[in-house]
Amino acid sequence: MRVTELYLAMQGELRRVEEILEEEVASREPALQDASLYLLRAGGKRLRPLVVLVSGRFGRQGDGESLARAAAALEMIHMATLVHDDVIDRAETRRGRPTVKAAWGDQLALYTGDFLLARALELLSEVADRRLHEVTARAIAHMCRGELEQMHDLYRVEQPLLRYFRRIRQKTALLMAVSCLVGARVARADEAAVRALWRFGGHLGMAFQIVDDVLDFTGSEAVLGKPVASDLLQGNLTLPVLLAVREEALGRRLAERIRPGMTADEVAKVAKAVTACGAVERAKQVAHRYVERARRDLAPLPYEWGREAMEAVLGFVAARDR
Amino acid sequence: MRVTELYLAMQGELRRVEEILEEEVASREPALQDASLYLLRAGGKRLRPLVVLVSGRFGRQGDGESLARAAAALEMIHMATLVHDDVIDRAETRRGRPTVKAAWGDQLALYTGDFLLARALELLSEVADRRLHEVTARAIAHMCRGELEQMHDLYRVEQPLLRYFRRIRQKTALLMAVSCLVGARVARADEAAVRALWRFGGHLGMAFQIVDDVLDFTGSEAVLGKPVASDLLQGNLTLPVLLAVREEALGRRLAERIRPGMTADEVAKVAKAVTACGAVERAKQVAHRYVERARRDLAPLPYEWGREAMEAVLGFVAARDR
Repeated sequence: MRVTELYLAMQGELRRVEEILEEEVASREPALQDASLYLLRAGGKRLRPLVVLVSGRFGRQGDGESLARAAAALEMIHMATLVHDDVIDRAETRRGRPTVKAAWGDQLALYTGDFLLARALELLSEVADRRLHEVTARAIAHMCRGELEQMHDLYRVEQPLLRYFRRIRQKTALLMAVSCLVGARVARADEAAVRALWRFGGHLGMAFQIVDDVLDFTGSEAVLGKPVASDLLQGNLTLPVLLAVREEALGRRLAERIRPGMTADEVAKVAKAVTACGAVERAKQVAHRYVERARRDLAPLPYEWGREAMEAVLGFVAARDR
Repeated sequence: MRVTELYLAMQGELRRVEEILEEEVASREPALQDASLYLLRAGGKRLRPLVVLVSGRFGRQGDGESLARAAAALEMIHMATLVHDDVIDRAETRRGRPTVKAAWGDQLALYTGDFLLARALELLSEVADRRLHEVTARAIAHMCRGELEQMHDLYRVEQPLLRYFRRIRQKTALLMAVSCLVGARVARADEAAVRALWRFGGHLGMAFQIVDDVLDFTGSEAVLGKPVASDLLQGNLTLPVLLAVREEALGRRLAERIRPGMTADEVAKVAKAVTACGAVERAKQVAHRYVERARRDLAPLPYEWGREAMEAVLGFVAARDR
């Protein structure tokens, strides 16, 4: 199955998720509603809702509306973190359009994020039990921690690789695992399937973030909607850089060039060296290993269509160019 | 009962709440933990925990630990909103000490708020059912809306009084009502008591915020830990101002003087006029009416000690000077 076929197969459910999202961000406060709708209509892959919905297919309960609401809640949590991250990163564009922060300012962006987070948890409480709530709230706390660890480790070329992996687990992988968990549980999948999907989501999320970090080096500005090597420019050292500075031949010299206040030109040169030494390629291989692990997580699941759908998601994450 | 006696009577429970707070904000991420502990140790009245605990006394279930955890969760939500509000207001001090934002910067303050919010909801999920979660999350969304409406109405002297009352209901009163609700429900109080306490909390919260807004005019900088008329300086027009600009004699001239870019001297003059024309006094009377309503909410409750304890909280809120 190709991911396009999967999106097509799920289009009814995904459309319902969009409707719920539009309903949920409706607010008497015009600025809040404008900013939320702007964010919503900027689009995105809706990967988390997709993963919630497909996970739900592994369950025994056919309550599509609950599943769609859970899917919308997960997307809103993701949107909330994007708005806040843009404030932190002082990002002016995302997906090629001005960020909420750039269009409305930090203050509105901050409350829009808080609002989306609160609405998401309110929505989730309609369909999820106490334990799911706990896991979801914990994942959000971990995401904050991940972002702060990232701030703490800016420009630290000597940081252990383990810190990178822990950071992306917190920042990205956990919410993907929670998406699988929520979908499977809301649809009352059996415990073995829930556990397998939870693990799958974690590995999928790790692969997703590493690919994202690789794209920062290999993508083009026109496709990404943001400048190339923008992570590096901000001092956020991702897997390709951390592998490159470990290279025997050029690692040390490269490390010396990475510091606050690098010019765009210096950043471009470092990025070029990171690619040239093969570190980007090796980061891709690491992502691929997570894809393989995720694929193995699917093996014991007894539902063929669901496995193929998740394979399609995996294939898409591994091969995407934005 | 005096409020000091109440704090004394509840000191065991309140101490347990402090312990839980310290445990819950513990984090591997040092900056996050430092900022959270700093915030925690800055103190505060712990009014929301107190109200949760006293509400719990109206219940049938003696599970003190669950109640203490719920109380800690409510305080963490309150703390989260304080950190974010300080970012928005660009506040340098709170309670006479530098704010988290001033000490660590906007970025850490933003994630500290998100973290506290997520941890609070995680903690709440241990003790509260789905419905309580929903009400709490909705209250947080309303708080965001209230803050945004406040931003929207800055310097708008012609705003209807109703907007002010709606704003403070969203910003403050709702979380106080939720504190009562959570306490009563976690302790399994009967439905009539739950409803009465919910209403009481709302009225208590309204009185609390109006008194707060009055103190901005009548308090001294040394006692408040922030400059006098700081709301007015930022363009946040509270009840005393909104009543003053409705005065037949001086209202119109006063309204003309309220605008962005007022000097500290101009603000001081406007504040003086607001007090001189009796508007501050009348705002106090409005607060008093909410105190009276809250007192009436207590009347049907069948538990004398609990009623007296809540009366003590009310008396404290009405008479406080900071």
